[in-house]
Amino acid sequence: MKEPYLKALREKIIAAFESYGGTFERTPWQHHSGGGGEMAVLRGDVFEKAAVNFSAVRGETFPGKDGMGPFYATGVSLITHMRNPMAPTVHFNIRYIETPEKSWFGGGYDLTPMGFPFTEDTEHFHRIAKEATGEYYEELMERAKEYFFIKHRKKERGVGGLFFDHRPMEFEPTWKSVGDTFLDAIMPIYERRVTMPYSEEDRQKQLAMRAHYVEFNLLYDRGTKFGFLSGGNPEAILCSMPPIATW
Amino acid sequence: MKEPYLKALREKIIAAFESYGGTFERTPWQHHSGGGGEMAVLRGDVFEKAAVNFSAVRGETFPGKDGMGPFYATGVSLITHMRNPMAPTVHFNIRYIETPEKSWFGGGYDLTPMGFPFTEDTEHFHRIAKEATGEYYEELMERAKEYFFIKHRKKERGVGGLFFDHRPMEFEPTWKSVGDTFLDAIMPIYERRVTMPYSEEDRQKQLAMRAHYVEFNLLYDRGTKFGFLSGGNPEAILCSMPPIATW
Repeated sequence: MKEPYLKALREKIIAAFESYGGTFERTPWQHHSGGGGEMAVLRGDVFEKAAVNFSAVRGETFPGKDGMGPFYATGVSLITHMRNPMAPTVHFNIRYIETPEKSWFGGGYDLTPMGFPFTEDTEHFHRIAKEATGEYYEELMERAKEYFFIKHRKKERGVGGLFFDHRPMEFEPTWKSVGDTFLDAIMPIYERRVTMPYSEEDRQKQLAMRAHYVEFNLLYDRGTKFGFLSGGNPEAILCSMPPIATW
Repeated sequence: MKEPYLKALREKIIAAFESYGGTFERTPWQHHSGGGGEMAVLRGDVFEKAAVNFSAVRGETFPGKDGMGPFYATGVSLITHMRNPMAPTVHFNIRYIETPEKSWFGGGYDLTPMGFPFTEDTEHFHRIAKEATGEYYEELMERAKEYFFIKHRKKERGVGGLFFDHRPMEFEPTWKSVGDTFLDAIMPIYERRVTMPYSEEDRQKQLAMRAHYVEFNLLYDRGTKFGFLSGGNPEAILCSMPPIATW
């Protein structure tokens, strides 16, 4: 019963983002060995680009080192790239995976200011993350710190958040809590930032920071690797890329 | 005696590119375990961004599966991103590597139209490549076809060229010939293309094609991987990235 929860959560997020104007363009796709998903991409004035994807795929051979044989994987994956450089990028993903040997939960959310970090935003984001995960917070926050690290630049991608993977069935309530609190974590930040004034120079700084985001996604992100290795739809995997980046 | 050849060739290329206006900005860098290199980046009106780098590094542990223990690696690596969408991107690299067990040559050049391929250009580029490599042409051309392939998009990166690696000492004359003919391969193409008229729509198409180039470089390129694994300077490795790309 993960799919109904994921689908409903996704619609709630889509509606919240659309309240700033624009409509998500939805593109369903089929996985070659079973199932599929739906990309939804918004290109608007406030959300310069946002992607909120759902997928539920089955395959004969689990890619990577986490298993062999058939698998089932479902999840919601989301990234925003805001027009206003003062508004950070946010990434959110929750996923559930089944193989014959075991099943597990993964996911998290993390915040990436694009050149303009605000302590107030970081504190708010982490406060919600802590409320969502309780006793797990310290651990999941540390995991995010490790995971969202741009090795070649020797820096964290952003200001952190939550990251977890391979969590057993008992973790489901926390997994859901991460899903349920995502909008509380990000929307008050956007409310404050998307109307702030900014200069062309600020915009240039934002575009340069987005390049680091591209580097992380293509060089280190497991979701991207998993997507390509499992024969996922490249358009769906890469719709997380920023609308524009500069080097 | 590879370094003097590489350095002289690089200066010849830099002078040829600068003849279209602008000056390369040169940034020397040191490798943590010995040697170093010099990035040279031009940001101009015709060459929107070009990088022509030299490096000669020593290290204690050869990265990857080609060897163990100490190594010496020297080479010239080059990428252009042209303002005019009718003018293709070109990539050129020649390198020489020594380990205690063996030494070898690698390199090649390949052409990537950014949405606007011209048969005349492809034919010219391959004619020069064939003259440069003679009996090896078919093989090196096939290797380029395989190597410069964007797996997740199931397409070649561009219109091909030459690619080789792990070539023994007898290959040095061909390696040099690849270096010596690079400007003949590309400059007549630029001469024809950089003054062609183009529309804003053409520009948008070019920027979208550049995104595929970014994907290749970060997901598949061995030079990028080798660079990061061997502790190379990230600025030098990533100065090959396009000045601007869109997704």
